[in-house]
Amino acid sequence: MTTTSQTLHTDVAIVGAGPTALFAAFECGMLKLNSVLIDALDSVGGQCAALYPEKPIYDIPAHPAIEGGALIDALEQQIAPFNVPRILGSRVETLTGSRGDFTLTTGRGDTIHAKAVIVAAGAGAFGPNRPPLADLEIYERTGAVQYYVKKRADFTGKRIVVAGGGDSALDWALSLSEIAEKIYLLHRRDRFRGAPETLSRIEAQIAAGKIEKVVPYQLHALHGENGNLSAVEVAALSGETRKIEADTLLPFYGLSTDLGPVALWGIDTQRNTIPVNPASMESSTSGIFAVGDIAHYPGKLKLILQGFSEGAMAAHAIHPIVNPDTALHFEYSTSKGTPG
Amino acid sequence: MTTTSQTLHTDVAIVGAGPTALFAAFECGMLKLNSVLIDALDSVGGQCAALYPEKPIYDIPAHPAIEGGALIDALEQQIAPFNVPRILGSRVETLTGSRGDFTLTTGRGDTIHAKAVIVAAGAGAFGPNRPPLADLEIYERTGAVQYYVKKRADFTGKRIVVAGGGDSALDWALSLSEIAEKIYLLHRRDRFRGAPETLSRIEAQIAAGKIEKVVPYQLHALHGENGNLSAVEVAALSGETRKIEADTLLPFYGLSTDLGPVALWGIDTQRNTIPVNPASMESSTSGIFAVGDIAHYPGKLKLILQGFSEGAMAAHAIHPIVNPDTALHFEYSTSKGTPG
Repeated sequence: MTTTSQTLHTDVAIVGAGPTALFAAFECGMLKLNSVLIDALDSVGGQCAALYPEKPIYDIPAHPAIEGGALIDALEQQIAPFNVPRILGSRVETLTGSRGDFTLTTGRGDTIHAKAVIVAAGAGAFGPNRPPLADLEIYERTGAVQYYVKKRADFTGKRIVVAGGGDSALDWALSLSEIAEKIYLLHRRDRFRGAPETLSRIEAQIAAGKIEKVVPYQLHALHGENGNLSAVEVAALSGETRKIEADTLLPFYGLSTDLGPVALWGIDTQRNTIPVNPASMESSTSGIFAVGDIAHYPGKLKLILQGFSEGAMAAHAIHPIVNPDTALHFEYSTSKGTPG
Repeated sequence: MTTTSQTLHTDVAIVGAGPTALFAAFECGMLKLNSVLIDALDSVGGQCAALYPEKPIYDIPAHPAIEGGALIDALEQQIAPFNVPRILGSRVETLTGSRGDFTLTTGRGDTIHAKAVIVAAGAGAFGPNRPPLADLEIYERTGAVQYYVKKRADFTGKRIVVAGGGDSALDWALSLSEIAEKIYLLHRRDRFRGAPETLSRIEAQIAAGKIEKVVPYQLHALHGENGNLSAVEVAALSGETRKIEADTLLPFYGLSTDLGPVALWGIDTQRNTIPVNPASMESSTSGIFAVGDIAHYPGKLKLILQGFSEGAMAAHAIHPIVNPDTALHFEYSTSKGTPG
């Protein structure tokens, strides 16, 4: 990670460094286009690395199951031959110029000159929805309150309050119930939203005494000293409160996302997405392309796989911008039989 | 492989069993659609398995390099949970009916009833372009003449005539020159078409005495007994001939492909491709979809990756055909943070 500001000249500035951005850098490299990855996070990988590094993904082609972190590692290895520079830990704030001559600046003062831009910013900047509790920051700093399970083994033998009624809460309650001393599953409604299979596994762990349902209750207060949690206080709608002795609180209340300055760059946006031409991934602004979750076109699926495929289309569409005099002949990256 | 004819009822009939067809079956499975794979070849994998099982492919996301055979193995493992039936070794000859109620029949007499069809037939049936030489079949049967390198080790210590001027000829001449006794690289022109890097590596092997250029010459006759090759006779434009003592001839004159009966099914086709709606991969015929190399739309790239992504789009577009009363809510196949 660089901490002083840089000035770089490149063919393609890629805004974002998640899986889609990494593969867009690969496709650029295959077409001999230089690129730079720029991300507000301190490391590459986007949500995959930050939110679910140990969670398996099942729909990456030719990977029957791959964890988020391993997916990013494999993509890093794939782009290693191209030595793609990264500007991390600082968000792109301004984007000016036009096709063939763009300038981007980051919050830290980096300046990137690029002939084309690929916006692969996912849902924009993202962060957990935090519960409104007094002294929350103190417990966040010690790790007594966490929003993502980065290392499952850290929870061995712990008494954990898992808060939330969706997939993340249920899946992590189940997973951690195998190693924790006890899981308290807190939800403000009586019923959980989950697949029938998941709900029946939850019931089995309740019967085994590993999980205890605490419903319908909401978070009320944290008790402890110096950031060491001793109990989580919860409240019913009636106002009745209850203290649960616990070491850790994991609230799963979803993500808040923010397109941020992308909306200020003069590109057409609609409901936090950038409409693109499906034949090229080009936005309403010539020379600016969008791929991955932030890109929208008829039939769009928000799958990582679609983001990969869109990166290939964008790189091919950018080739003539960088090489106006060279026709591109490119198909598979392995040779096929060709007429002798 | 089945040898007696079958009658099957399924949601989706997938015509083809190459990588794109296999991943389309996976995407169908993820959406709880049943499917059947049907291919004229005796095994799954299409060109990847039949033509380049040992050749690395570099542009499959999160696989820095994967050989054709390994790619197919990984896809097979990925669809294993869905137990997708296969009808192999017989070509689909007729396709009749309409959206929701199609009937396909194969040359062997199999009948498949399906609600929707995905045509993932690549370039159609494919085979090598064969040189016009007397007694060629005799030498093909013994393996003295081969069109694909299926097992590189079989060529150890051999004297090999490699014929052709394109990537396949050059790449295999280089690769086999490491283990063969001698490579004769035959081309009807003076110059080869290859990347500068490849051509300079060829020159190095010529200097080392491992490769000998035989240009400009064409194949003229095969000499030997009972299919055992002793020499390849070549001819210059002037009519002059020359005999090269050799054990094996590898002609790389490209593939001939044939859409075959697909063109007779009433679907619009253009230059051996099926135009599709890029938002759904649906052809001009409602309920019949196309993915992979056979599908065409503006901006289409003939990459395996695009075929994967198209399979996801087709499966999602087919879901309402099979389940007209059920709305589909589906994003990533790993849960994400959701509001509690």
